[in-house]
Amino acid sequence: MNALTRRALLAGASVAGSVALISVASAQTVPQVPADPTKVQGRPPNEVGDRSPFEQPRRTPSATSSQTPLDLLNGIITPSDVHYERHHGGVPLIDPSRYRLTLHGMVDRPTVFSLEDLKRFPSLSRIMFLECSGNSGASWAKGPPTGTAQTLHGLTSTSDWSGVLVSTLLKEVGVQPGANWVLAEGEDAAVMTRSVPIDKLADDAFIAYGQNGEALRPEQGYPARLILPGWEGNINIKWLRRLKFGDQPFETREETSKYTDPMPDGSARQFTFMMEAKSTITWPTTRIRVMPALGPWEVRGIAWSGRGRITRVEVSADGGKTWAGARLVDPVLPIAHTRFLFPWTWDGTDVVLVSRATDETGYVQPTRDELVAARGTGSIYHYNGQQNWRVAADGTITNFYAG
Amino acid sequence: MNALTRRALLAGASVAGSVALISVASAQTVPQVPADPTKVQGRPPNEVGDRSPFEQPRRTPSATSSQTPLDLLNGIITPSDVHYERHHGGVPLIDPSRYRLTLHGMVDRPTVFSLEDLKRFPSLSRIMFLECSGNSGASWAKGPPTGTAQTLHGLTSTSDWSGVLVSTLLKEVGVQPGANWVLAEGEDAAVMTRSVPIDKLADDAFIAYGQNGEALRPEQGYPARLILPGWEGNINIKWLRRLKFGDQPFETREETSKYTDPMPDGSARQFTFMMEAKSTITWPTTRIRVMPALGPWEVRGIAWSGRGRITRVEVSADGGKTWAGARLVDPVLPIAHTRFLFPWTWDGTDVVLVSRATDETGYVQPTRDELVAARGTGSIYHYNGQQNWRVAADGTITNFYAG
Repeated sequence: MNALTRRALLAGASVAGSVALISVASAQTVPQVPADPTKVQGRPPNEVGDRSPFEQPRRTPSATSSQTPLDLLNGIITPSDVHYERHHGGVPLIDPSRYRLTLHGMVDRPTVFSLEDLKRFPSLSRIMFLECSGNSGASWAKGPPTGTAQTLHGLTSTSDWSGVLVSTLLKEVGVQPGANWVLAEGEDAAVMTRSVPIDKLADDAFIAYGQNGEALRPEQGYPARLILPGWEGNINIKWLRRLKFGDQPFETREETSKYTDPMPDGSARQFTFMMEAKSTITWPTTRIRVMPALGPWEVRGIAWSGRGRITRVEVSADGGKTWAGARLVDPVLPIAHTRFLFPWTWDGTDVVLVSRATDETGYVQPTRDELVAARGTGSIYHYNGQQNWRVAADGTITNFYAG
Repeated sequence: MNALTRRALLAGASVAGSVALISVASAQTVPQVPADPTKVQGRPPNEVGDRSPFEQPRRTPSATSSQTPLDLLNGIITPSDVHYERHHGGVPLIDPSRYRLTLHGMVDRPTVFSLEDLKRFPSLSRIMFLECSGNSGASWAKGPPTGTAQTLHGLTSTSDWSGVLVSTLLKEVGVQPGANWVLAEGEDAAVMTRSVPIDKLADDAFIAYGQNGEALRPEQGYPARLILPGWEGNINIKWLRRLKFGDQPFETREETSKYTDPMPDGSARQFTFMMEAKSTITWPTTRIRVMPALGPWEVRGIAWSGRGRITRVEVSADGGKTWAGARLVDPVLPIAHTRFLFPWTWDGTDVVLVSRATDETGYVQPTRDELVAARGTGSIYHYNGQQNWRVAADGTITNFYAG
């Protein structure tokens, strides 16, 4: 296309984009903007900055969770104050000077650690996603659930976590032979508890006290949280106060009555910790409701896998009949949101956009049909099927499922 | 050391750590913390989270800048609201729907782009540091300036930036032969202007509209900022409204009367864009004033280079007589803060801790003496000498310079 045509299309995009911005800003009090900002002295430096009044990303809170606005974000880091939440008794207020973490049970030297103790040990930092096992759960329903990338898939976020390896603490306390499971307990009103295999704790588990440079946010478990890379969010126990070492699972309510997956044969899968490879397009989606204009665009989205690095993301504009590889944005990190970008020209026809991720194990994100064939429809957790977005000839964008 | 001794030392650390936390929190209204957080329902999910009242990182604002609390942070990402600031006419308030970027001068097709136009082009994301050329400037003075890692070196921060390559826009407008320099102009009250070589613009320069997932923060140039990877902060023009293409530098006041480096021979170096390799220990430093206890600790800090990746950081506990390699935390990214960690045992003697960085070009961060030998002391910009921190036998930590 020539430059003139391109500019005409761009002008069209600008109008629609402005409408979207105004709708976001309308919930706020937008100050009077100077006609010429160069004629007005701006605000001086301050201690802590604020967002532009025109940019107000928001989580979507329900009674027990809130979702990250994936469809408003760039890059791979989730701003800490819109990291998704999921808690079972609300967010407790904890005084860091009174915080204690107790390691006991089948250990040689039961030990109580303060927060400053934890910070004194050799540290690590890791850019990593967390995802609630219930994320995308509405997609188990037949026929497409309605929603945006945020409301359908927003129970996942990526942060730069800092903390201390659990293996370091294991050396301090001396784990006894036969101590194969560990009860992790939180200091919230739900006293959230899960059983964790010792092998995972001794491998890559860590106790995080930092998030995106600063201290852990309260809803992420301040002052300290267990992190089990790649595993479902709820077992990454927040406000961690106790690790009790034993010889078998503790069969807490969170792993018997909840967080299990009923299977087609009537059995229930327990301890399905791993979050498998998944992706979703974040633009264009139902968030913008209607395509702003014909012509060249960039399809954007994120992919992630609990098993390691994303190695490939493919995008289809015909509902999965044909696929082409998307560009992955560096750095592509293991167990972290990975951004994909895909050039696409909308010619005004009715299309279905969909992405699928492949991880370093070779696992390919399934269609919903493939997922249901393996798992049935009795589950509400661990949905990682492909997400279709339909762009109709009139530009309207809707949720879509063919099967 | 045995576990009992270790625990005794850790208990000592805990007390001192708590004192530091209280001093930070005292400026805030700290709510009543429940005696047992498990007996009180916590706060429900919300749209935007807040920090713990016990954790309040703050910039240190002066009339025209504010510094990042490097000595309070973990990882490599700087929270957007404490990213350092430096501006010449305050932070303007700009309506994104009225934002326009004009490319004109020696181009075939002068073009005005809206913000939505910029967002429509193929995008990129990049985790990258910015640093004010005046960062660490107090260290040009003989004998150590007093301050913390924040107040001495806090005019640098790292974000995950998103935007569009300038080279993409160059193709749209058609740069004419001989157009070797470009005037970049900001829409602030200072109408900040700098001349940029076309080669840099055509190489890795980009126009950022995203920062750490969300929109650019106002003090970082919302809605759009020029980014010239590795180059001094001020030429990364914020609130970018114009790129004018010409055949020679525009000799703006920011490159004649300011941001030049007087040399020992009486000449002045102009257009010294590159920010050379640098590092500083961030713990233990004057921020904590006194070592909490004897025994094993982890020295922590950051290193960065405008020329690419950091390849090595060494730490010395004897003021630079002997060195040992520190551990670099993955991911080590080009032109990004890189975290280093170094195990160290404080035996109660008087020591001087210092770090030095090496980048992928083989360049080694100099001592102040080496820097002065090359550059004299007439400059106030581009200081990248080593930073010494003295730990006296009584545990007191002070700024130190031997030369």
